[in-house]
Amino acid sequence: MSAMKDFADLELGFDIPALPGMSEAEVQTPCLILDLDALEANLARMADFVASRGLRLRAHGKMHKSVDVARLQMTIGGASGLCCQKVSEAEVFVRGGIRDILITNEVRSPVMIDRLARLPQSGARLAVCVDDPTNVPQLAEAVQRHGTELGCFVEVDCGAGRCGLSDPEAALALARSIASAPGLSFAGIHAYQGGMQHLPTYAERETAFAAALAITRAVVDRIEAAGLPVPLVTGGGTGSHPLEAASGLYGELQCGSYAFMDAAYGRVRGEDGGRLDGEWRNALFLLTSVLSCPAPGRAVCDAGLKAQSADSGLPVVSGPEGVRYTKWTDEHGELADPDGRLAIGDRLRLVPGHCDPTCNLHDWYVGIRNGKVETIWPVSARGKLF
Amino acid sequence: MSAMKDFADLELGFDIPALPGMSEAEVQTPCLILDLDALEANLARMADFVASRGLRLRAHGKMHKSVDVARLQMTIGGASGLCCQKVSEAEVFVRGGIRDILITNEVRSPVMIDRLARLPQSGARLAVCVDDPTNVPQLAEAVQRHGTELGCFVEVDCGAGRCGLSDPEAALALARSIASAPGLSFAGIHAYQGGMQHLPTYAERETAFAAALAITRAVVDRIEAAGLPVPLVTGGGTGSHPLEAASGLYGELQCGSYAFMDAAYGRVRGEDGGRLDGEWRNALFLLTSVLSCPAPGRAVCDAGLKAQSADSGLPVVSGPEGVRYTKWTDEHGELADPDGRLAIGDRLRLVPGHCDPTCNLHDWYVGIRNGKVETIWPVSARGKLF
Repeated sequence: MSAMKDFADLELGFDIPALPGMSEAEVQTPCLILDLDALEANLARMADFVASRGLRLRAHGKMHKSVDVARLQMTIGGASGLCCQKVSEAEVFVRGGIRDILITNEVRSPVMIDRLARLPQSGARLAVCVDDPTNVPQLAEAVQRHGTELGCFVEVDCGAGRCGLSDPEAALALARSIASAPGLSFAGIHAYQGGMQHLPTYAERETAFAAALAITRAVVDRIEAAGLPVPLVTGGGTGSHPLEAASGLYGELQCGSYAFMDAAYGRVRGEDGGRLDGEWRNALFLLTSVLSCPAPGRAVCDAGLKAQSADSGLPVVSGPEGVRYTKWTDEHGELADPDGRLAIGDRLRLVPGHCDPTCNLHDWYVGIRNGKVETIWPVSARGKLF
Repeated sequence: MSAMKDFADLELGFDIPALPGMSEAEVQTPCLILDLDALEANLARMADFVASRGLRLRAHGKMHKSVDVARLQMTIGGASGLCCQKVSEAEVFVRGGIRDILITNEVRSPVMIDRLARLPQSGARLAVCVDDPTNVPQLAEAVQRHGTELGCFVEVDCGAGRCGLSDPEAALALARSIASAPGLSFAGIHAYQGGMQHLPTYAERETAFAAALAITRAVVDRIEAAGLPVPLVTGGGTGSHPLEAASGLYGELQCGSYAFMDAAYGRVRGEDGGRLDGEWRNALFLLTSVLSCPAPGRAVCDAGLKAQSADSGLPVVSGPEGVRYTKWTDEHGELADPDGRLAIGDRLRLVPGHCDPTCNLHDWYVGIRNGKVETIWPVSARGKLF
């Protein structure tokens, strides 16, 4: 109790869930924990993958929102840059020392265009996606105002049906407009098919990717046929990246979830028919404690909808065996415990349904190795929505 | 642009979405906005309701997590105290000047029991729920250590099937144990039937409440028959509170969502068959901007899964008419716009599916009146999970 009491003394009103050296059993719950061995193994595996294929890796920081994880991706993970989705995220990563950032999204707010255009003053290289010609003079005007430069990727909608354009003529016109705008450079094509990442089988993803590749290739061919070189095609996610890697067209991968994994990706099948959580290790867990055992076979834990995102289904209980997470409410998780294994205060590791929006709910990652807290990392860009 | 540029100067790296005096069109998106007239109308309506029934109101702070909203509930909203779900939330509200707080949940972590037991040193009155006899000596030991007192409510499971007990003998034994523990007082019965709040019709909620009331009354009767007075029965939510109010058993209501409302409660029917969003005004909106109009009839906005909780379905677009929010991904919302009303940069107000976990994703509320930003309130207890 004395270490716990010191911890309470320290933490009154400052909700860090753990201190280095604690055992996992002492960590406050609910909180996110990272199995550091698993994380490092995933980063090394992806580093090997891109090295063996001669590809660049621009890991997606929108997933983890952590400067510390990003640095690890740059040092041991084979990444040569970072992606993010929002200017306010990019600001956090720039302040954290990341020097090469692509915003894989359109930026249309005048305030955010201004903030984006200022970021290269830090010495970092910034790039952004564009899918509409009216955005080009807005970006150009801003970089001229700040004396900076921005790379611009034309976003191609290669099947996800979200942002981006797919008509080769329109893409060419946009690329030309970028190439001729002061302070902007045409950096290439961004083509990410988010809709295919979670197709259950590899064969389904192969089919979807063939369609995506045809669209993207037609755009690249049209632009190059007009005499404008396409420096890079960038895209790819955890579910599809072997396909982008084998395409001969993509020069850069943008995978994010591979680093932590989640229950949704865990269920997806890989090239050999095995589950993806056999290829990539679950590094992210939502640690929760049993709060109540109100009746035989039933328990309630302290992790509900405010500790995890509901978009991709219920979390998976990573032991004890036979326990299932059956329902969530705002602050509670209901557990079926048919064999009566749980008692009040017991801890469970949950594999969240979807890592990205779950990480965004938390302020801290507790890094665990050999059952001990090794490090506590802030979710540096948590809540950076702009 | 000059006000916007000043704003950008100020906000680089500090993501407050607005400044007082701005128009709604200048607010950074995505962000939560509060229609202050609607909020005040909802608070006044509930104040009238509890006053006319002679009931106490202990508004639920887990919904808004805002010290400012809590203060308004105490000053103009008829509330005589606040509920919250976590000790770390209670700490925030105590620091914000709220003097009477009930944690409508069990607290089982030794660290959090210690923090809870210290809170009354501030001068605030604290109470907590208990559903297990082993919790009583834990709480008693902690308050003795800190020289404080805690009120304890026995939590009754009146049909939701989450925490709590429903056996009258077990409840009596627990109440007696609390009443005889040093530093603890038996404050009454907490009986909240969360599972009935969103039953679509009032008649369905009447039926569910009749069952809940029978369970709760049996517990109260058993405890009082044993000579232990039950000072208060507390519970009730936005969907059911007229039933608790009419029961003759409840002395206190714990409604939360009525202050902001959301799309899920909006669809629920009231006593007269009308929708609840006819009785209570939508005060909470997720403000979003159109980021891309990639094809006729289709637009993409900047509010996805990191700006709203997915547990209660898609948000409802509050104009322009004919526009629907059809799909979310992490940072994007896809919009069907059959009449082609939307252009890049246009703003939409969305009514979120579920207010509580959506508010918990944001750092700020932007209070709007007559189209202008009147105030910016922090989501003070955002992310307080412990």
